[in-house]
Amino acid sequence: MQLNANDYPDIDLTPSGADKRPHVVIVGAGFGGLACARAMGGHAVRVTIVDRHNYHLFVPLLYQVATAALSPADIAEPIRKILRRHENIDVVMGEVGGVDVARRRVLIQEAGYVPYDRLVLATGSKYDYFGNEHWAKYAPGLKTVADARQIRASVLLGFERAEMCRDRDRQKALMTSVIVGGGPTGVEMAGAIAELARWSLRRDFRNIDPRSARIILVEAGPRILAPFPEELARYAHASLERMGVEILTDQAVRDIGPEGALIGDEFVRASTMVWGAGVKASPAAQWLGIEADRQGRIPVGKDLAVEGTEDIYSIGDTALTLDDRGEPLPGLAQVATQQGAHLGKSLVAQLERGAAPAAFRFRNRGNTAIVGRNAAIFDFGKRRLKGRFAWMLWALVHVYLLVGFEQRMLVSLQWLWRWITYQSGARLIAYDPSERGRGSQGSEPPG
Amino acid sequence: MQLNANDYPDIDLTPSGADKRPHVVIVGAGFGGLACARAMGGHAVRVTIVDRHNYHLFVPLLYQVATAALSPADIAEPIRKILRRHENIDVVMGEVGGVDVARRRVLIQEAGYVPYDRLVLATGSKYDYFGNEHWAKYAPGLKTVADARQIRASVLLGFERAEMCRDRDRQKALMTSVIVGGGPTGVEMAGAIAELARWSLRRDFRNIDPRSARIILVEAGPRILAPFPEELARYAHASLERMGVEILTDQAVRDIGPEGALIGDEFVRASTMVWGAGVKASPAAQWLGIEADRQGRIPVGKDLAVEGTEDIYSIGDTALTLDDRGEPLPGLAQVATQQGAHLGKSLVAQLERGAAPAAFRFRNRGNTAIVGRNAAIFDFGKRRLKGRFAWMLWALVHVYLLVGFEQRMLVSLQWLWRWITYQSGARLIAYDPSERGRGSQGSEPPG
Repeated sequence: MQLNANDYPDIDLTPSGADKRPHVVIVGAGFGGLACARAMGGHAVRVTIVDRHNYHLFVPLLYQVATAALSPADIAEPIRKILRRHENIDVVMGEVGGVDVARRRVLIQEAGYVPYDRLVLATGSKYDYFGNEHWAKYAPGLKTVADARQIRASVLLGFERAEMCRDRDRQKALMTSVIVGGGPTGVEMAGAIAELARWSLRRDFRNIDPRSARIILVEAGPRILAPFPEELARYAHASLERMGVEILTDQAVRDIGPEGALIGDEFVRASTMVWGAGVKASPAAQWLGIEADRQGRIPVGKDLAVEGTEDIYSIGDTALTLDDRGEPLPGLAQVATQQGAHLGKSLVAQLERGAAPAAFRFRNRGNTAIVGRNAAIFDFGKRRLKGRFAWMLWALVHVYLLVGFEQRMLVSLQWLWRWITYQSGARLIAYDPSERGRGSQGSEPPG
Repeated sequence: MQLNANDYPDIDLTPSGADKRPHVVIVGAGFGGLACARAMGGHAVRVTIVDRHNYHLFVPLLYQVATAALSPADIAEPIRKILRRHENIDVVMGEVGGVDVARRRVLIQEAGYVPYDRLVLATGSKYDYFGNEHWAKYAPGLKTVADARQIRASVLLGFERAEMCRDRDRQKALMTSVIVGGGPTGVEMAGAIAELARWSLRRDFRNIDPRSARIILVEAGPRILAPFPEELARYAHASLERMGVEILTDQAVRDIGPEGALIGDEFVRASTMVWGAGVKASPAAQWLGIEADRQGRIPVGKDLAVEGTEDIYSIGDTALTLDDRGEPLPGLAQVATQQGAHLGKSLVAQLERGAAPAAFRFRNRGNTAIVGRNAAIFDFGKRRLKGRFAWMLWALVHVYLLVGFEQRMLVSLQWLWRWITYQSGARLIAYDPSERGRGSQGSEPPG
């Protein structure tokens, strides 16, 4: 690993001093990292959690920020606040640039290093453009607050500009959204944009009818929601079409530019494009100098330790873990959370009592996707749910899973209110397009 | 007025057609512009309100966004949503670049023009650095969501960096805030930062004690809160000092740079600086090519018409209106609101019934400032209030004045919750410093 010493000053960022407890360092405060830290709270280990942001983001609800239903602060909670009551847990806000495996140090850009006895890599995943990284500028994925703000601004600005536009073709383009990828994120985005146009903005304009907005969901495979049973996917397909979403299956997006997307042989002019077609792991494998799988994931053993190492672990979207049938576990919040909690407990047992590492076993809590108002699907393996009851269950589960109590209360009140009034909560145009695409992946300006 | 024709295409942005009603165009959807539009809602005039943002911002609570208590969406409401029920009111989102007085057109950058029969300029004010405009980069004022996000990020990042810092002097600088100007905004900011450090962040850090943060309020005059009676100012002064704020009166800020501020002869290193020392009107006077007063305000007559014109009016911070004693009315939300409502009614009477213009008279509803938890002041002229009851009244009044019902409900719940728990609501570090200082005044990325 080539690193410039000037970028990583020789400064220990943790209070060294008298603390002789073994030191576990977690990189990433997503679902996995946070669950891992919490499981070690109050035990005889020292824990430092490093993240580039000062907040944990509840990514499953990010599509609601992107579609102007919630504010970023509704689904983000300061990491320090979440972990405050555990005196043995430190938080470091910084951008990790690499790992010095030989000296057991995590290197923080422009700040220094954090020494570790055990390292947990929980850095998540990002969208994969399969070699067309220049598409990201026009069709952001949905992983960060900046992504969500960019999408929200582009949808709302599209309507604002269409209202003033006298050119019919351009007006149509300004009211067109293309969503690439028919997975849960694509379905959620398509449904939410359709509801925004059909309900929330319905009476806001004089020259255009937002209900005539065109929303196109493009899926390269034969059907949407591939990980779900066909019955549920069919229901979601029909629900989306009823909401006015055009679904194109077996269609590849061949190019994306500032004016729109080339879908198959047809160029569709669009002002909003969203990418949800594939993910790859963050560059943690490169930090270790080890070989990752095709999606950039780090192979780990049953105990979640990185193969070939003794003191490094990986969980969540960063890790390649296989189930009993040898299939990779999916990149879901519940997988990351269960792995984090398991690893935290296992590390405490090892470091406090010298226990042997315990094997991780995933327990499927059910898989869900939301299509729109009153329409969601649940797959519990044997049992399946769809429709209004599934939607209520979806809302309950997501409110419950939100980290902070205050957030839960506010989000549930906003949902209730919006559900009664058909309104949207956070309709600020809040993004300056020129701020994108500068600097590294860490440059997004959230909040 | 020199304008480049390419910047302003010859496109009428309002639906021309058959609508023969007289057309009133309002520039600016602040308190004044919005009140003016509302007063004309449902009458036999056509109204178009132009703003660079798609939302109305409740500026009196912006300091709470700057100090991480509220989210931008809590105090912003889409203009279209506010005015939706009035079919005679259009909204145009765009950046006004000038007024073509001869042809009665408002020119919108990169879009076209809006023709008017009557024009109302309600573009507000911005902070005045008295010739030191380069200070703005380091010490933003508090007028836009971008300002608030920059200040919030700098306060919170200061603590994050101080936590990792091993250099005592630098650590102290990272925890130092300098607020320039002892008016209501300066007092509110100083109090709110003090509360953030002393209560909300108290237990969040391991290496630093946020309560040791240094907050300096600098006032060039002999006392803070000059517009208030001395008794109330003394109370606010004592309350702030009790909260740990250092108040320097009769002290001028002589320079501001990236590292801190030169106050008198002493250079104070600081990571957060806020400018609240003076305002000037936005450049509406230049659009008209008329002479403004020293603060950039447009002189208007009793009927709020711009002197020397017959079809152009100005209200709020943009206008110079004199009270009965010949003193200029202050730049307060209540002045703008009353002028807007008066002008709207007067224009309807003139245009519908050919009535004569009515003279405006300001009714003082009382002047207020908030110092902190349980401490506010009210000046009703003869009666004065201070302390806990004033604080409760302040909170009631501000919740009531918030435009949307949903906002009212959410903000009051958040305040109640924070008051009980001593917590802060919206602690996201949300600002990328590099996004500042690019382009024109209209480039702020709020939300």
